[in-house]
Amino acid sequence: MNGAESLVRTLSGAGVEVCFANPGTSEMHFVAALDRVGGVRCVLGLFEGVATGAADGYARMADKPASTLLHLGPGLANGLANLHNARRARSPVVNIVGDHATYHKEFDAPLTSDVEGVARPFSDWVLTSRDGRSVARDGAAAIAAAMAPPGRVATLILPADASWDAADGPAPLPPVETRAEVAPEAIAEATRALRSGKSTVLFLGGPALREPGLTLAGRISAKTGARLIAQTHNARVERGAGRVPVGFLPYPVDAALKTLAGTDHLLLTGAKAPVAFFAYPDKPSALSPPECEIHTLAAPEEDVVRALEALADELDARETAPVQQPDIASPPGGTVSPDAAALALAASLPENAIVVEEALTGAPAFMSRTRGATPHDYLQITGGAIGIGPPLATGAAVARPDRKVVCLQADGSAMYTVQALWTQARESLDVTTVVLNNRSYAILKAELANVGANNAGRTAHAMMELDRPALDWVSLARGMGVEAGRAATMEEFDRQLDAGLRSEGPYLIDLVL
Amino acid sequence: MNGAESLVRTLSGAGVEVCFANPGTSEMHFVAALDRVGGVRCVLGLFEGVATGAADGYARMADKPASTLLHLGPGLANGLANLHNARRARSPVVNIVGDHATYHKEFDAPLTSDVEGVARPFSDWVLTSRDGRSVARDGAAAIAAAMAPPGRVATLILPADASWDAADGPAPLPPVETRAEVAPEAIAEATRALRSGKSTVLFLGGPALREPGLTLAGRISAKTGARLIAQTHNARVERGAGRVPVGFLPYPVDAALKTLAGTDHLLLTGAKAPVAFFAYPDKPSALSPPECEIHTLAAPEEDVVRALEALADELDARETAPVQQPDIASPPGGTVSPDAAALALAASLPENAIVVEEALTGAPAFMSRTRGATPHDYLQITGGAIGIGPPLATGAAVARPDRKVVCLQADGSAMYTVQALWTQARESLDVTTVVLNNRSYAILKAELANVGANNAGRTAHAMMELDRPALDWVSLARGMGVEAGRAATMEEFDRQLDAGLRSEGPYLIDLVL
Repeated sequence: MNGAESLVRTLSGAGVEVCFANPGTSEMHFVAALDRVGGVRCVLGLFEGVATGAADGYARMADKPASTLLHLGPGLANGLANLHNARRARSPVVNIVGDHATYHKEFDAPLTSDVEGVARPFSDWVLTSRDGRSVARDGAAAIAAAMAPPGRVATLILPADASWDAADGPAPLPPVETRAEVAPEAIAEATRALRSGKSTVLFLGGPALREPGLTLAGRISAKTGARLIAQTHNARVERGAGRVPVGFLPYPVDAALKTLAGTDHLLLTGAKAPVAFFAYPDKPSALSPPECEIHTLAAPEEDVVRALEALADELDARETAPVQQPDIASPPGGTVSPDAAALALAASLPENAIVVEEALTGAPAFMSRTRGATPHDYLQITGGAIGIGPPLATGAAVARPDRKVVCLQADGSAMYTVQALWTQARESLDVTTVVLNNRSYAILKAELANVGANNAGRTAHAMMELDRPALDWVSLARGMGVEAGRAATMEEFDRQLDAGLRSEGPYLIDLVL
Repeated sequence: MNGAESLVRTLSGAGVEVCFANPGTSEMHFVAALDRVGGVRCVLGLFEGVATGAADGYARMADKPASTLLHLGPGLANGLANLHNARRARSPVVNIVGDHATYHKEFDAPLTSDVEGVARPFSDWVLTSRDGRSVARDGAAAIAAAMAPPGRVATLILPADASWDAADGPAPLPPVETRAEVAPEAIAEATRALRSGKSTVLFLGGPALREPGLTLAGRISAKTGARLIAQTHNARVERGAGRVPVGFLPYPVDAALKTLAGTDHLLLTGAKAPVAFFAYPDKPSALSPPECEIHTLAAPEEDVVRALEALADELDARETAPVQQPDIASPPGGTVSPDAAALALAASLPENAIVVEEALTGAPAFMSRTRGATPHDYLQITGGAIGIGPPLATGAAVARPDRKVVCLQADGSAMYTVQALWTQARESLDVTTVVLNNRSYAILKAELANVGANNAGRTAHAMMELDRPALDWVSLARGMGVEAGRAATMEEFDRQLDAGLRSEGPYLIDLVL
């Protein structure tokens, strides 16, 4: 058995079932081992950002890591932007990167680079295997590192000779860290805040936005009057009719400040303190009021659910009925807009759908209009590195073939990782993509004014227009084997949405705004 | 005047005429300044790898740097693979990357990352501007760093507040390093080798593959019998009928070893010693024979042309007529293959064309069959980071609007930066792309055997097949506004090639192999 095979057997043995791959020469032994081992499904992406973004989507829906397989420093570089998003989502990812044979590095062949240096800014853990006999143990360590709370990007670098040299066999998974218990003082401090009679917000992230954390938060809110607010961008939110309703902190700074105005106590519950996405001249970076006291109930890596249980016990709220989101049946229709599209989607969303949203300027409409739809998971862009939507939908669909995935996707950001559509076709994934085609980087038009660059002229505005030529999303999708249709009216959108939701494979709707 | 405007004025003043951009919020002040300054053409790419690859292509054809404009760590990350190629091409690139405002970094907003850390593995020079008044001077230093021989990637990181804070005005370009003179001992050593009567090779790179270096090398070869061999992958080679013929060192290790077998002296002339692209079990990393003596006539950053002049003087070869490449008029035709396509192209290539080649398995046919075509420049993938072809062609066309660009492009690698087609349409660039559509990562099929992974099964082979579904390149091109046609026979290819070469804008031919 060679090093590569010992690694694939280690992955398989530890329950890593999927590898999102874009391999090259130095990864051929790993690829060859897949047939001999079995148990690891290898999903090909035609660009590395597809592989890393899919690994993020898979982890968010499977609650365990997939691996990637990337080719040397430049291949890793192409995957970094979505590793950044995965880290911000706190998704476990076993990021495997091939490198030149150890003895070949000194020759500085054309593809040589400092692979560890490339990995480090977007990895929580980095290791280069020394030789064939080390690979299995290093791989097991990488899996454990990825699974350590709250979920980490662990990069294992695999020199070609470590892959092809002899190994002893697979290695067992070492003990995986568990979430640290929250200190009783934190529970006591939160209890005092909630009993103070002052305006209190539970600021929710991670497990607090999923069952059973969500219902616990709902009970505490019902008992104490505390408001529930989620981070602006979240890895996964369980929401919809019958669930505990949680608003998202708005992205624009002024709206976020208004949302948090008057708050006396902010209880961080699986979230960090709210900050502005960007700095703007004359606007604050911190979004909570200066006089607000910030308390950490549970840090993202701590046992958030156990902390909510303990808090509910302290408050005698374990049996308090939480507020439930009512079913909202707004009549869809009207002219084409993100809002109308969101209403139409809310009316026809299949039960238990996975909604991936990288709608950017369209996001508020979708967040708001789908809140009373049938229960669903809502997955967002967590790190601001655009181009996550199509890969995230791909990975989510691989993780959950039993559920429909709907990807609400801005056109500008869709182009960064457009190659994901091909993987959706190849793997017959049940993803309906709605491209919100406004032929512009619409968000930048707003940001131009927000940063005070108001005196911009024609050249500057041309940098935000994608209409010369307009992208034809139906052609692009069909070019990658994905069925597609265009909608320029809401009637057409209803028909297209129906076709997409009925389809069992990938479908793309070019919604012309 | 703010920092951003002082930078744009500094670029313009130093002769940097083009900015290949994919900006975001933190770059809005730079973008806004473009209208107020003029003199810098801003070319939008829909993915950062398009911008960096185009900057490489521009530099290779304009012999001066363009700038880029990228958005924070993840935007830079998306551009790294083609910065790697640019570095290996020794192309000067002024790589400008926005970052969060200095005071915002500590808040660890979602898009925060270690931008310097991201830049370092693929930059020769990295600097973060401290404040608005530093930006112009830092920008001028970046331009000088990029232009230092033999051409460097200089990354300037621009915090948002440095962009929007006040500045004093543009800064002048500091003195730019010139190429170091080669020591007389190196000339004397090369002279001794060439007069030794032993088998000698001039191993050529950089300026030795362009006029006047090329003719000087040709004269020395004619005088002494030394062979001329170019690096396997070069930034730019001037070649074709009437020019000094130079063979490329083959990519496969066995063929490369055979090419250099029996060589007693290897004279490095603007090139590094030849090494295998990858390591393979039981094959050497160094490609020259063990007993061969390697001499550095001129390192890549030294004055290669002056060294060749001095050497020709020593050998009394300044008037010796070099061998000239004869015009080869092979009859095109036959069944569809890279070889037939190369023959057809050789027969119809417009004078002074720029040929960009990322054909991978098709490369040997194109290298060989076009060597006697009408004079042209031949641009290759230098760093092995696939996905350079379409961006490189884009940048070359921006640099030289007077010349036809032909991009010979493998299908697998084309997908990495397919977004470049949109920029070609938007800027009406005169690029004819021939996609060599073999529906596979054909090069990996060969590499699987080369690395000794012969026991690969169905799963492994599936990782190299792109036929399920097949990519429809005509649809993809049209989706981005590029006219396109398909060729499944050589007659169709001739017609399509004629249409492409007659067109004054971008055109894509899907050549079905």
